[in-house]
Amino acid sequence: MAEPASTLAAGSAGTVGTQYLDLPEPVRLDCGRELYPVRVAYETYGALSPRRDNVILVCHALSGDAHAAGFAKTPAADSTRDGFGAEDRDGAAHRGLGWWDGMIGPGKAFDTDRFFVVSTNLLGGCRGTTGPLSIDPATGKPYGPDFPVITVADMVRTERALLSALGIERLAAVAGGSLGGMQAFEWAILFPDQVDAVVAIASTHALHPQGVAWNAIARDAIMRDPAWQGGRYYGTGRAPDAGMGVARMVGHVTYLSALALGDKFGRRLQFADDIRYTITEPEFEVESYLRHQAGSFVRRFDANTYLYTSRALTYFDLARQHGRGSLARALEGVSARTLLIAFSSDWLYPPSASGEVADALRALGKPVEFQVIEAPYGHDCFLLEEARQTPIIRRFLSSHSLAEGGAGG
Amino acid sequence: MAEPASTLAAGSAGTVGTQYLDLPEPVRLDCGRELYPVRVAYETYGALSPRRDNVILVCHALSGDAHAAGFAKTPAADSTRDGFGAEDRDGAAHRGLGWWDGMIGPGKAFDTDRFFVVSTNLLGGCRGTTGPLSIDPATGKPYGPDFPVITVADMVRTERALLSALGIERLAAVAGGSLGGMQAFEWAILFPDQVDAVVAIASTHALHPQGVAWNAIARDAIMRDPAWQGGRYYGTGRAPDAGMGVARMVGHVTYLSALALGDKFGRRLQFADDIRYTITEPEFEVESYLRHQAGSFVRRFDANTYLYTSRALTYFDLARQHGRGSLARALEGVSARTLLIAFSSDWLYPPSASGEVADALRALGKPVEFQVIEAPYGHDCFLLEEARQTPIIRRFLSSHSLAEGGAGG
Repeated sequence: MAEPASTLAAGSAGTVGTQYLDLPEPVRLDCGRELYPVRVAYETYGALSPRRDNVILVCHALSGDAHAAGFAKTPAADSTRDGFGAEDRDGAAHRGLGWWDGMIGPGKAFDTDRFFVVSTNLLGGCRGTTGPLSIDPATGKPYGPDFPVITVADMVRTERALLSALGIERLAAVAGGSLGGMQAFEWAILFPDQVDAVVAIASTHALHPQGVAWNAIARDAIMRDPAWQGGRYYGTGRAPDAGMGVARMVGHVTYLSALALGDKFGRRLQFADDIRYTITEPEFEVESYLRHQAGSFVRRFDANTYLYTSRALTYFDLARQHGRGSLARALEGVSARTLLIAFSSDWLYPPSASGEVADALRALGKPVEFQVIEAPYGHDCFLLEEARQTPIIRRFLSSHSLAEGGAGG
Repeated sequence: MAEPASTLAAGSAGTVGTQYLDLPEPVRLDCGRELYPVRVAYETYGALSPRRDNVILVCHALSGDAHAAGFAKTPAADSTRDGFGAEDRDGAAHRGLGWWDGMIGPGKAFDTDRFFVVSTNLLGGCRGTTGPLSIDPATGKPYGPDFPVITVADMVRTERALLSALGIERLAAVAGGSLGGMQAFEWAILFPDQVDAVVAIASTHALHPQGVAWNAIARDAIMRDPAWQGGRYYGTGRAPDAGMGVARMVGHVTYLSALALGDKFGRRLQFADDIRYTITEPEFEVESYLRHQAGSFVRRFDANTYLYTSRALTYFDLARQHGRGSLARALEGVSARTLLIAFSSDWLYPPSASGEVADALRALGKPVEFQVIEAPYGHDCFLLEEARQTPIIRRFLSSHSLAEGGAGG
């Protein structure tokens, strides 16, 4: 739990330690297997109300972890906060700030003066929650490629089990960006009576075909690396760092808009106009930047977790899974109010995708608010455009509570 | 030279064999080195006029070769004609058709009843022209990474030397798409008195920063493959096929529009709704397609040539090289008439890039025509939208000749 914010910078969730909980029961997976034991890494910010009715679950994206807000108790050099904009922020990662620190804290979008925010590392993760790195009780060795293939619904079932173990039966909201938003949608469908509100940012009901292709290429780059060794690289002294680096670079370019890349780097060379005539050394600034990003990602993230998580988000398809082809049928049981936020320059999770969810909810008569923020940074906006998301989210969460106290929601 | 077209399908350039010419002099390169010996692979279609004034040079893109039109004398299983649309065309590649066969032949855009079309494999290539695969006379072994770094201007100087050796001093036109269009621009700047017309399709004066990034990632994927061995993989029994495959997949997605990918594959699974729950096998149709493309590319193309050619097209920057930052200064010496064609859905070489060249030429009072074709296939349109390019190019080439006979151009 967090220390009082007043002892730290205003608006901070404080200094936070990651906690771990071993689920009492196996998690039953979509693939038919049961997974046990399952440990979940999580953090909490703010205080649980006596009625336990002020809980917001925050779900992370492909490469995040449970440390969403505040300062890490033991700041890790390998913080997940190494996004496009983060490095511009006075070395935020090195100070151990959570990946959504701008959004979670006293007076922030997810206001810890009011809400008890829970953030978990997702199932299959490599940052404390059971995943391919964990020991398979059947063999006494890490699962590696024997870890069961997981879905977004499996992640949500695991989050549900954690919350039950914490004595939390109901969520005031479930929120997330990108894959985190997919988890939020899945929550509202799987547990309609337990979710009052969904906040899904820069997300989609199903990744578009080009996004499927980018993710397939990233996974293939990892699996083509001979150091991947069919996924059994733990303990061999080798890891598919080369393939992971390529996967991260591909991902990174898809998270940015072409405009943002142009503004930040243009076609600038590293050595002014001094062309070096080499094929091996990067000469463009953007090349060095991408290689740097690849290097820092490889140091903090497990390749098998990348494969499992990328597969889950690529396969996520609400209409196929829940609606036999129709988004309306997938969403018809939802009782939560939904806030959708998308960014004009996000070409990986474009506003049109959120718009399709909004249209389907609206056609079903469900309460939904859909906001498109004009911003240039592409998909990474969900991590960067905190100031512009904040009033939208705060107002939505307030009106939600009013609705509950009033005419019902 | 081609056999009479009448013995073959109407409109075909006939059955064509690739020829080879050893340049009499070294090629002086931008990097300061001189390259010798230099062999150039080329093909010709149509007949050279007695006045030698009907020559069109066709320049290929990143992965092309000299076999631009007609049927190959010895059809190769590894034809370059494996683009997005080619496979839909009744196995055109397997019948040995040239990569721009739809554009070059009797009555086609580049009409061999009228023009003598010359097509070369570019300098640094792996399809007959001297490149990293060739023997370095200093060592008696293939150059590999000791091949000098080359530029688009170096490619053009090599083409100029070939034509001189063939007794051709003047071009009625120089034409190409993508990197081929860059060569056409470079021709008009380096040899302004020898080029009557430029036809640059889906090209640019300088790749935009996101394109720089994609190319950097593709090159990095090759160089990170341990089988690349610092470029000295020839004769080792290993080649960086894994990295080359990733490079090709990245390239392939950038050559298509998101819409085209969606129309062709959508989110269709390979096995209907039968999800296999595997992380290693492709389940989406688009995944299998990309892996297939990667595999066929790896079989026919040399990784070092890819690196050298990708670097050349990424570094190409008319304003930086010729104009000290200004496109106007780069183009002020051009005397050729210019036709620019771009495609609405091409996000790698967008219409705006061609538009910048058109604006600069127009501001200089140079004759220029700029056409944007509305078509959905992305950058690959330059290989696919033959029917819609043809009347534009035929009219442009005709009016050019008239202009020469009349008021001058």
